[in-house]
Parts: sequence; C-alpha cells; structure tokens
Amino acid sequence: MKVAIVTGSDSDLSIIKETVEILEKFGIGVYISITSAHRTPEKIKKFLKEVENKECEVIIAAAGMAAHLAGVIAAHTVKPVIGVPMESKPLNGFDSLLSMVQMPSGIPVATVTIGKAGAINAGLLAIEILALKYKNLKEKLLKYRKEMARKIIEKDNILQKKGIKKYVEDTK
Amino acid sequence: MKVAIVTGSDSDLSIIKETVEILEKFGIGVYISITSAHRTPEKIKKFLKEVENKECEVIIAAAGMAAHLAGVIAAHTVKPVIGVPMESKPLNGFDSLLSMVQMPSGIPVATVTIGKAGAINAGLLAIEILALKYKNLKEKLLKYRKEMARKIIEKDNILQKKGIKKYVEDTK
Amino acid sequence: MKVAIVTGSDSDLSIIKETVEILEKFGIGVYISITSAHRTPEKIKKFLKEVENKECEVIIAAAGMAAHLAGVIAAHTVKPVIGVPMESKPLNGFDSLLSMVQMPSGIPVATVTIGKAGAINAGLLAIEILALKYKNLKEKLLKYRKEMARKIIEKDNILQKKGIKKYVEDTK
Amino acid sequence: MKVAIVTGSDSDLSIIKETVEILEKFGIGVYISITSAHRTPEKIKKFLKEVENKECEVIIAAAGMAAHLAGVIAAHTVKPVIGVPMESKPLNGFDSLLSMVQMPSGIPVATVTIGKAGAINAGLLAIEILALKYKNLKEKLLKYRKEMARKIIEKDNILQKKGIKKYVEDTK
Amino acid sequence: MKVAIVTGSDSDLSIIKETVEILEKFGIGVYISITSAHRTPEKIKKFLKEVENKECEVIIAAAGMAAHLAGVIAAHTVKPVIGVPMESKPLNGFDSLLSMVQMPSGIPVATVTIGKAGAINAGLLAIEILALKYKNLKEKLLKYRKEMARKIIEKDNILQKKGIKKYVEDTK
Amino acid sequence: MKVAIVTGSDSDLSIIKETVEILEKFGIGVYISITSAHRTPEKIKKFLKEVENKECEVIIAAAGMAAHLAGVIAAHTVKPVIGVPMESKPLNGFDSLLSMVQMPSGIPVATVTIGKAGAINAGLLAIEILALKYKNLKEKLLKYRKEMARKIIEKDNILQKKGIKKYVEDTK
Amino acid sequence: MKVAIVTGSDSDLSIIKETVEILEKFGIGVYISITSAHRTPEKIKKFLKEVENKECEVIIAAAGMAAHLAGVIAAHTVKPVIGVPMESKPLNGFDSLLSMVQMPSGIPVATVTIGKAGAINAGLLAIEILALKYKNLKEKLLKYRKEMARKIIEKDNILQKKGIKKYVEDTK
Amino acid sequence: MKVAIVTGSDSDLSIIKETVEILEKFGIGVYISITSAHRTPEKIKKFLKEVENKECEVIIAAAGMAAHLAGVIAAHTVKPVIGVPMESKPLNGFDSLLSMVQMPSGIPVATVTIGKAGAINAGLLAIEILALKYKNLKEKLLKYRKEMARKIIEKDNILQKKGIKKYVEDTK
Repeated sequence: MKVAIVTGSDSDLSIIKETVEILEKFGIGVYISITSAHRTPEKIKKFLKEVENKECEVIIAAAGMAAHLAGVIAAHTVKPVIGVPMESKPLNGFDSLLSMVQMPSGIPVATVTIGKAGAINAGLLAIEILALKYKNLKEKLLKYRKEMARKIIEKDNILQKKGIKKYVEDTK
Repeated sequence: MKVAIVTGSDSDLSIIKETVEILEKFGIGVYISITSAHRTPEKIKKFLKEVENKECEVIIAAAGMAAHLAGVIAAHTVKPVIGVPMESKPLNGFDSLLSMVQMPSGIPVATVTIGKAGAINAGLLAIEILALKYKNLKEKLLKYRKEMARKIIEKDNILQKKGIKKYVEDTK
Repeated sequence: MKVAIVTGSDSDLSIIKETVEILEKFGIGVYISITSAHRTPEKIKKFLKEVENKECEVIIAAAGMAAHLAGVIAAHTVKPVIGVPMESKPLNGFDSLLSMVQMPSGIPVATVTIGKAGAINAGLLAIEILALKYKNLKEKLLKYRKEMARKIIEKDNILQKKGIKKYVEDTK
Repeated sequence: MKVAIVTGSDSDLSIIKETVEILEKFGIGVYISITSAHRTPEKIKKFLKEVENKECEVIIAAAGMAAHLAGVIAAHTVKPVIGVPMESKPLNGFDSLLSMVQMPSGIPVATVTIGKAGAINAGLLAIEILALKYKNLKEKLLKYRKEMARKIIEKDNILQKKGIKKYVEDTK
Repeated sequence: MKVAIVTGSDSDLSIIKETVEILEKFGIGVYISITSAHRTPEKIKKFLKEVENKECEVIIAAAGMAAHLAGVIAAHTVKPVIGVPMESKPLNGFDSLLSMVQMPSGIPVATVTIGKAGAINAGLLAIEILALKYKNLKEKLLKYRKEMARKIIEKDNILQKKGIKKYVEDTK
Repeated sequence: MKVAIVTGSDSDLSIIKETVEILEKFGIGVYISITSAHRTPEKIKKFLKEVENKECEVIIAAAGMAAHLAGVIAAHTVKPVIGVPMESKPLNGFDSLLSMVQMPSGIPVATVTIGKAGAINAGLLAIEILALKYKNLKEKLLKYRKEMARKIIEKDNILQKKGIKKYVEDTK
Repeated sequence: MKVAIVTGSDSDLSIIKETVEILEKFGIGVYISITSAHRTPEKIKKFLKEVENKECEVIIAAAGMAAHLAGVIAAHTVKPVIGVPMESKPLNGFDSLLSMVQMPSGIPVATVTIGKAGAINAGLLAIEILALKYKNLKEKLLKYRKEMARKIIEKDNILQKKGIKKYVEDTK
Repeated sequence: MKVAIVTGSDSDLSIIKETVEILEKFGIGVYISITSAHRTPEKIKKFLKEVENKECEVIIAAAGMAAHLAGVIAAHTVKPVIGVPMESKPLNGFDSLLSMVQMPSGIPVATVTIGKAGAINAGLLAIEILALKYKNLKEKLLKYRKEMARKIIEKDNILQKKGIKKYVEDTK
C-alpha cells in the first residue's frame, strides 16, 4: 500500500515533509519525486511509470504559482490525484489555489488547503481513500482523530484551570 | 458500490444532477439527500447514519456562500469527503471555494472546481477513488477518457475541414 | 451576566485575550473554551450545554481559515452569536471573513473586524447587547466611549503643541 | 419592543423589505427611515433622536459601495448596530462588505451576509438580541428554526420519493 | 510565414476568430487546432509536430479556468508562446489569467489581455515578433496603427461637431 | 471657467455624459475629446495644447482596463487631473481602479468611484476645485447639496406615509 | 494659503508627515489634527470649524480599514477633500482603498495611492489645486517636476557609466 | 543582436539584474535605461530613439503599482514589448499585473510573471523571439532547458538517495 508524491521544486520539500510523516505514521509506503511540469515535462511520464511499477494507488502533487503539476499528472492517469497549492510569493498561494482547483470538467484534482495545513490534509485524504480498501487504516484514522480531539480537550482543561492570561503567558 | 451526495439546499439540485448522471453512467448507486449544515444540524447525523446503512463509501457535499457543509460532514466521518463549491451570488462562488478548501489541518475536504464543472469532476473523482477497490471501474474510466479525447479530436477534424469561420457559424 | 467565548484553537487565545479583558473591565463574567468545529465536533454540544448551565447570554466565536465555528454554533442556538475572523496565514484572514459573514439566510452570525480589532469589538458588541437588559452597562459604555474620545483629544492636543515632526519622533 | 432600520437610499428598500417582514412576523415594531450618511449627514442625528423617542433598542443599517452608514450610526450610539452590506454594482457588494465590517477597535458593527440573505439575517439577529430581554421571542425563534428545518426535511422527503431528475424538472 | 493557434475547447473559437482574422489581414498563414492540455494530453505532441512540419514560428494558446494549455505547450518548445486567458465563468477569467501568467522562472508565457481584446492583441504581438524577421510586416503594422489612430481622430472630429449628447444618441 | 474631459474610447461617452451634464448645470464650459493613451499617443500633446488654449483649469480623464490615460495626462501637466475608472468587462472596473489610483509618488491622479457614480463625482470634484477661485460656485454647490438632501428627505417623508410595502410596490 | 490635514489615528502621523513636508516645502500653511470619524464624531464639526477659521482651502484625510473619515468630512463641506488610504493590516490597505474611493454619487472624495506614495501625492494634488488660484505655485510645481526628472536622469547617467552590476552593488 | 530594458525606477534594478544576466549569458547585447513613464515622460521618446540607434529588437519594461511604462512604450513602437510587473508593496504586485496585462485591443504587452521569476522569464522570452531570426540562439535555448532539467533530475537523484528528511535538513 503506497502513495506517490511529486513536487514541482525541491523548495517545496520542507512543507511536503509533513505529508510524508503523516503517511509513514500510518504505515504507508511513500515514493517521492521532484518533477517539474514545466522544466522536466518528459519526466512526468517516467514518474507515472514509476508510480505504476511501485504500485502507488494515490498521487499527491504539490506546486506553486501557475501550479499546473497536479492537473498535468491528472491528465495522464485515472488514479486519484490530490493537489496541494504551495504558499508561493508574492500572491500568497492564491494563484496556486486557482490554478489547481479550477480544473475543467473531465479531469478532477482533489484540492486541499494552501500550504502546510494542506500538506497534512493531503496525507490524511490519501489515507481516507486507501482506508476504503485497506480496512485496518480506518481504525488508525479514528484513533488519529480521537488523539487530535484529546489534545484539544487537554488544552481546554488546562485553560479552565489556568485561565486565559496565564495560558497565553505560558505558551508565549 | 455506492456514493452519498448531500446538498445544502434544493436549489443546488439542478447542478448536482450532473454528478448523479455521471455516477449512474458508471453503474454506481447514489444516495442523495438535502441536509443543511446550518438549518438542519441534527439531520447531519441522520444523514451519516444513512450513509453507513446504505454502505456508501464516498461522500460528495455541495454548498454555497459560507459553505460549511462539506467541512461539517468531514468532521464526523473518516470516509473521503469531496466538496463542490456552488456558484452562489453575489461573490460568484469565491466565498464558497474559500470556505470549503481552506480546512484546518486534520480534517481534509477534497475540493473541486466551482459550479457545474465541479459537479462533474466530483463524480469522476469519486469513481477514481472507488476504482482502487472495484477494478472494473478503471476500464470504464479509461474508456470515458478516450471518449472525451475522441470528441475533441473529432471537433478538431471538423475544424481542419471547415476552417474556423464556418465552424463558428455552424455552432452558433 | 455572562458571555461565553469559544476559539477553534489555542493559538487564537493571545488575540481573544483582548475580548476577555474588555468584558472583565465591564464586570461581565466570561466562560471561555477551546472547541474546534472540525476536530472536536462532539464537544460543540457539550460547550453549548455549559453555556446554558452557566447562563451565558451571548456567544463569541473566534476562528480562522475555513472558519465554520461561529456558523456551527449559531446553527445550534438562538442566542446571538458574534464571529471574530482570525488573521490566519496565508490569505490574511480574508478566507476567515468570507467563511464567517456569508451565512445563508436563517442563521445569522454577527461578524466583526478581522483580528485584534475584531476581538475588542466583539467584546464591546456583546456588552452593547447586554446593556439593553442590564441598564448599568449603558453608563459604562458611554464612559468608555468618552474615555476613548478623550485619549484622541489628548493626543490631538499634544500634536497641536509639539507639531508633527516632534510627535512622530517622540512616539517612535 | 422596537427595531429601527435605516437605509442609505430608497433603492435599498426592495431588499430591506425582507427585514421588515421578518420583524413584523415576530410581532416587533419597526421604525424605518431613508437617511444617507453622505447626502444627509445632519439627518443622522434626527434619526437617532427618533430612535430614542420611539424606544427602538436595536438599529439595522443597510448601505452599499463605500458603505459608511452603519459605522457612522454606530459612532453616535451604544445600542447594537447591525450592518447589511448591499450588493452594489460593479464590485458585487465586496466594497460594501469591507467598508462595513472592517471597523476600527472601539466601535463595532455587527455585519451580516451581503444582500437579501443579509436582510433576513439582520432581522433574525435583532430578534435574537431582543430575545435576551423579551422571553417570548425565544419560543418564536425556536419555532421559526423548526419550521425552517421542517421545510428542508419536507423537500428531502419529496426528493427521496421523486428522485433528482423529476425533482429538478418539477421545480424548473 | 506562419502562426499556430491552439485552443483548449471549441467554445473558445468564437473569440479566437479575432486572432485568425488579424493574422490573415496581415497575410500570415494560420494553423489552428483544438487540443486540450487535460483531455487530450497525447495530442499536444502531435500538435507540436504539426507546428514543426508547417514551419509555424509563433504559437498562440487560448484557454480558460485552470488554464494550463499555454504553459504545457511552452514546456515542450522554445518558440515564443503567447497566452490568451479566456473570460471563463464564474471567476470572469481571473483564474485563467493567474494560471497563465504566473509561470515559474525558466518557461515564459507571453500573456495578453483577458478575452476578446486579448485575442486581437495575441495576433498583433505575433505579428510584431514576426516583423523582426519579415521586414514588410513592419510597414503593415505601422499602417494598422495609423488606421487605428485615424478612426479615433475621426470619432473625435464627429464628437467636436455633434457634441456629446447627439453623439451618444446617434451611437445607441 | 472651463473643464477639459478626455475619454479613452467613444464607448465611454454614454457614461461621461453625466459629467458633462453636471458641469453644464453649474455653468461651466466643457471641452471634451476622445484621445487614447495607447492608440493615439501623439494626440495627447495636441489635447493638452488645446486644454491650454481653451484655458481649461481642471482635467477629467475616463478610461477602462489598464487605464493609463489619467496617469499619462497627469505626467504632462501640473493641473489637477481627476480619473474616472470605467466599469470595463470582465473584471468589473477593478483593473481600471488599480491602474488609475496606484500612481507612484510625484504624479497624483484624483481618483473617484468606478463607473457612473464616478462620472458624476468627477464633475462635482472639478466644481469644488474651481469654487476655491470662482466664489459663486460655492453657493451653487451648497444649493446642489441641499437639493440632494431635500430629495432624500422627501422620499423619507413618502416612506413614513406609505410604509415600505406600498413604497416598494409603487417604485417598481 | 492653507491646507488642513486630518488623520483617524496618531499611528498615521509617521506616514502623513510626508504630506506635511511637501506642503511646507511649497510654502503652504498646514493645520493638522487627529480626529476619528468613529471615536470622536463630535470633533468632526469642531475640526471643520477650525478649517473655516484658519481659512484652509483643501482638506486631506488619511484613514485605514473601514476608512470613513474622508467621506464623512466630504459630507460636511464643499471644499475639495483628498483621501489617503492607509496601508492597514491585515488586508494591506485594500479595505481602506475601497472604503474611500467607492463614494456614492453626490459626495466625491479625491482618492490617491495607498500609503506613503499617497501621502506625498495628496500633498502634490492639494498644491495643484491651490495653484489654480495662487499662480506662483505653478512655477514651483514645474520646478519640482523638473527636479524629480533630473534625479532620474542623473541616476540613469550613473547607470550608463557604471553598468547595472556595479549600480546594484553600490546602492545595496 | 540587442535587447533594450527600461525600468521605472532604480529600485527595480536589483530584480532586473536577473534579466541582464540571462541575456548576457546568451551573448545578447543589452541597452538598459531608467526612464519613468510618469516622472520623465519626455525621456520616453529619447529612450525609443536610443533603442532605434542601438538597433535593439525587443524591449523589456519593468514597473510597479499603476505600471504604465510597458503600455506607454508599446504605444510608441511596433517592436515586441515585454512587461515585467514588479512586486510593489502593499498590494504585492497585483496592481502592477493588472495595469500591465489588461491592455486594450490594438497595443499588446507581452506580460510575464510578477517579480524575479518574471525578470528571468522576460529575458528568456526575448531570446525565444530573437531565436526566430538568429538561429544559433535556438541551440543555446535547448541547451539551457536541458541544463535546467538536468539540475532538477540531479536534485531528484539526491532525494532518492538521501530521503526527504535528510534532504530538507541538508538544504536548510
């Protein structure tokens, strides 16, 4: 059970590391590659062949600005493609978001949040998709959710005890 | 093999009909319900129970304006949730898009194109997800893609024969 | 006489501290809780029960990005709900604002300024609402306004004396 | 028990009629006036005196473009001021929204949805505020919510019976 | 001397007809093809081979929404690629513009005005580029400019004679 | 006492007619010309010479899209230049506004509202500027304001008598 | 010969200092006051009386966010009002710009560039307006323009001598 | 074989240095000048004469805010004009982009990416244009592309060896 990740530039890796970490935490294999839709168009097919060989079932594509990578990948495969719009300067990822989500009918890209939150959500979405087939993942997802809720409840408990002034001071 | 669809209002049904048609074309069962995140919050859980009972594997949520529906559904399930931002007036669906895609880390919503193109893409994305498990869907998706390409090639052939002036005139 | 405050994350507390301070300054009790609409959906009801138990009359909800918290709370109560859009990166709170204010007809959210100014205004709006019932608050509000005006007049007086160059220099 | 409504122009009246209707439905008296912040600045004070005389407890202000009306009213009163951004051309009410909601700290405006949905929500928000004091309004609000939910459930029931194709056809 | 034009869909042809007309007016051969970056990715290479065979020197690509076409073409050729962002609904071509112009460094797309004005300007820009090599085009361009100026001067002369009221009336 | 008006295209005349009417109403002479910054750059100087000859004291420039006209005029004169951003499609005049108002330091353009409201305001602003020198204009401006206020008061009086429902019905 | 300046907050003074400097450079008297449209509404009239007493002929208003100050001033006077939108966080002055420029027909505000460039341009625009009446200002304006041009020409000359690499290095 | 570059201000030179470097790398002569459309309008013609004398074939114009420079240059020449929108504060170059790209029909500006990526792309686009005439440039462009691809492939190889964690750590 594997997920392929492709980024348009190595500068996206520090963000996409979050995706890798969440996938590995769930015991999912990751094949990751730097492959630019614009600078290495020939490499797209090589990447997709590798995706086939390694039997990756979901593809995550991260790119910024005129972020065509996810759309170009999606045009060549019928596997689910998840797009993470990078928070590229100067338009704050607003261009990345529109270039990714506004796909014409026929070729969907499952777009998630801009930036780091999106990197995490792309990983979780891939796991949710795989969980339809690999039943053990569902339990892990529910546990992850519970843990996430638990942390907030814990923080809330601390807030109830300390009060807001001390809480803010202590977490500065 | 089933997909659940939920819309925030019955005014979204004329758009989401596209989603239903594409799913039925692929032989996928559809459970569709009108359930507002804001006006019928209690009904959300009932909808999700129905999703469970009917063994729907993917959920598609369509909503406009402060489009919370997809996010609220996603908060209650670990099944993949696909969001279709409606083209709501006066901000042209721009508010729907941001309210849907900008989910905090932990709870992903797979957001697709605003409006009708998104309705079709949501259906196709759901099929791509199901195709990981139901192998026969993959063939159908490849055929759909081929058919889509064939239509464009056909149009291109007509264009080559007729020339642009006649083409534009004839398709007026 | 009490106001309930709910934030989607503990990272909002340093901003929402302003709300607490203004409420306390007016002698209003505050019940504050961290409760995520997405990560702890079950906790929403618990929060609302607590709001009932503690007899809070107004609810202030602060959240960022796809900021559903205020809308979700508003869907479950007929108490006035005030929304503070957080200045979340990378879209500068623009997504928070639209996700909060663009509520469909039927479920209002009283949205205020993005960020810190909104945190203060949410507190003042809550007090204005309570002042309809608790008459002593009106006097305090008028006094607060007078004090606010007095400070500006004082600054203006200093400006008239010092001139702009010295004023700017001294306040660097 | 009364609400005052002020609009910047008589062209807003066809929208703000929704506000009046919802308030009257709840048995609340309405004092409505056309008073432009820019064209009749002197009339603002007269309007506010009238608000006082008629013992209106909440003020609703509707305006478009550089929509200062709500803010100017708010600067002169400590009663709660609800702002409805009008859907003014050519920027679709986007200018109205920002001019209304982005108030500096100290003078809050409770901003609701742009346009007609906002006109209804402004009325409901005013009722929610009054309900803190006039207990019978709470029951009416809960009933209104139930009725709203009932209508959606009814539509959903029709959808379950008819199926989407027939539903869409019949509501054309 | 030839220019190649590619559109993502046949619905763009009625706009891109303006480009063809301007090129033909200047005696430039046009090879035009419908080739979608997303729906017919394999056809891109075929189109580019045809561009080579027919010895087209400049390529014009028109596309809407997540408008990747121009960027994808540019990634496969070092000929100048001119992009025309289509005025696609619901975001008015704003998504097309950003998807086209915000190319990463290394692969330029010469982006022009959104919509019909852009279709004309793409043709003129192609001619300006060809005019560096084909000297007779320069004279034609200067003549075109003069004619364009002459028309405005003529209109201005009519305005001076008629006055604005009659002018507006007569051109209704 | 004269004002010069320049429009980038004759299609702006139906809007700018409002400016002419308001100026004539105040007894101010108008010299109006169609002169495109881009299509007739040489005509700019001719226009400015005419402005000089006719002793126009204020210049109003109306243009749409990449609306350089006002800025280009302002670069060649130290007379006050008022810019009216046209409501050009498809970006609704948003591009016109930014192209006009965001002038670099050194060359100001007095920008007013987008579209028809701006056409009227440009006229009034020109009159306010001239009124510093031509004292009789001040009285006329005050009278105009009074008349404007009177009309709103009149409408308000009708509203008080008829009530909103009848008012809206009668003005349909 | 005098100009009045009003700022909504003393935090705007460090920017508006540019306006004061340019006016003083041209020998124009400046009356400057901090007067908030929202926090000190009563002070607006006092400010305007002072403007009258001191015989200021043009008014410059600087404000941020829901920047009503210029519009409110303009509603009370027929003197020319110039608005400087402040670069207020988090929306970068975008809200200030729209709140200022989108005035309804009848009450113009001469809006200039956002932020510091606008502060300078507001000063220059005021001088251009006064120059219609005070003839010596025209010469000074032309001299200022010449000086501005001279500086650019000088920089260009240095660039021609040094070349870009050395120029950039030396101005780091 | 020469390219002319013009910038609106010397503050743009540190960005436009990228353009010069790429052009020089390809053996293309560069004539660069600082010439403001607004502050030195007379210098535009001098610049264009110099462009003629030095036999520059393509013109690159870089400007920010209400970025008229490229359009003004384009209005005076039929040579291809490439525009680079500068990343000017506070609107992040969004105003520069719209002011540059939204040219009316008749006068095209070949607009590229905002900021530094655009500076590089402007250089490459100019080379692509010249390569139609100067055949040796085509080989160099293909080599540049290959080198660009090679670097990405190299980075990908390192990623495959090191894994993402070590890669990110080492490139911090």
